[in-house]
Amino acid sequence: MSDNTSASTRPAPLTLLGLGAMGVALARTWLAAGHPLTVWNRSPGRSAELAAAGARVAATAAEAVAASPLVVACLLDDASVREALAEADLTGKDLVDLTTSTPAESRTRAAWANERGARFLDGGIMAVPPMIGVPEAGGYVFYSGSREVFDTHREVLAVPAATRYVGADPGFAALHDVALLSAMTAMFAGARHAAALVENAGIDRKEFGALLAGWLTAMAPATAAYAGGPVAEDPTSPAVAAAGDAALLRTAQEQGVDTALLIASGGSVSGM
Amino acid sequence: MSDNTSASTRPAPLTLLGLGAMGVALARTWLAAGHPLTVWNRSPGRSAELAAAGARVAATAAEAVAASPLVVACLLDDASVREALAEADLTGKDLVDLTTSTPAESRTRAAWANERGARFLDGGIMAVPPMIGVPEAGGYVFYSGSREVFDTHREVLAVPAATRYVGADPGFAALHDVALLSAMTAMFAGARHAAALVENAGIDRKEFGALLAGWLTAMAPATAAYAGGPVAEDPTSPAVAAAGDAALLRTAQEQGVDTALLIASGGSVSGM
Repeated sequence: MSDNTSASTRPAPLTLLGLGAMGVALARTWLAAGHPLTVWNRSPGRSAELAAAGARVAATAAEAVAASPLVVACLLDDASVREALAEADLTGKDLVDLTTSTPAESRTRAAWANERGARFLDGGIMAVPPMIGVPEAGGYVFYSGSREVFDTHREVLAVPAATRYVGADPGFAALHDVALLSAMTAMFAGARHAAALVENAGIDRKEFGALLAGWLTAMAPATAAYAGGPVAEDPTSPAVAAAGDAALLRTAQEQGVDTALLIASGGSVSGM
Repeated sequence: MSDNTSASTRPAPLTLLGLGAMGVALARTWLAAGHPLTVWNRSPGRSAELAAAGARVAATAAEAVAASPLVVACLLDDASVREALAEADLTGKDLVDLTTSTPAESRTRAAWANERGARFLDGGIMAVPPMIGVPEAGGYVFYSGSREVFDTHREVLAVPAATRYVGADPGFAALHDVALLSAMTAMFAGARHAAALVENAGIDRKEFGALLAGWLTAMAPATAAYAGGPVAEDPTSPAVAAAGDAALLRTAQEQGVDTALLIASGGSVSGM
């Protein structure tokens, strides 16, 4: 299992399952770094493009798994991982699962992989494909599960993006991943709400976009407090907070914008 | 109306209506800058504290208005402004309304003030009280309505926080203010959702808070695109986006966290 100890001198071989936009971005960085790479995708998709860049294209997932001691999965969802690996021999393999999943799914997949003779490390990618292989873009990958797998393949895993090991619980990477993506989803929905409010008002949209992004960027550090850090004393009285929340709701109504997001958001002006 | 032309050499006098947390913060910066300040609040509240700092405390709003050519209101809501000024003589006054309001309320208040002989400038404060008088904190105030009022009192208005004039429409300051606060409200709700997901999971909350704040701070600039700027091509396929959204929902269900915010947020993972 440890023919990767030479990784620091000779790029270690690996297998990648899944060639969606993220899989292709990952594949390119490993190929560019000189890693012998075997790829597989359910449909031919962009296999030819990667073959031209030096990847070996396997005809089946089982064949791809057999080709390398390290197998990375970046598929549609957890069910796709189970299906793709149904016929593969995982004995002695190190399986790193970068597929987006829930914590419970990751824990189940870890037990399933262990039963089949593999070590398991789950990953949650905090980046969009254009950020892969671009360290200055700030993307990274949460990892949890087997510390041995993480340590053994640390250099390979660090090629596409920075790594953050968050614990032996195989569900922790997914939990971190989903928690941060959920918060981002709400932030983006808030930005769309703001844009909808000013739509048709005759406001320069580019200038407004810059103001919005500047404001959210300035206020985002305050979210650290919501996760259990010391919460700064809030000088806003409940009455002022309620009046502010009411103004947000009435403005949405005036501008004909759906209030569902504000209602689901509760009163966060009071949370400033 | 223009005894403020000497503002650059001698601090101009002004009146402030409303001594909530924000009003007190504003009052302190004007007093510290040497402006003769008359204050009024519906209840005595913190008047004594400001009197000790040099403010003249008026017994009625009408008396406070009579004391200065420039009257700044920072009250609970638009209805409080109308009520506070019901008995005041606004003839020849410049009324700057920093009270949180909707665009329609601000337009109505502007017409109301004009009918009573006052010029009107609306303001929306993008700051919490601790940011007032602290330029490096990055807070600022949106202004819209009378450009003449803004230009005449520019130096006075710039004492507590930076100023951004966004148009002659008296509703524009409120529209900008509410749009940005709405987006922040959703971002904060997203942060609370993330914190709820990891609660009781045995994850270090301070570390998680730092990760969350770092992620949102890194992704916040992308919100500029939602306001009409050029949207970067999204390499995420609809199937991948849907799978990602589903994982966020299932994780909330697994962790026993309300899914209302995610549902109201629609699918923003696809919006990355």
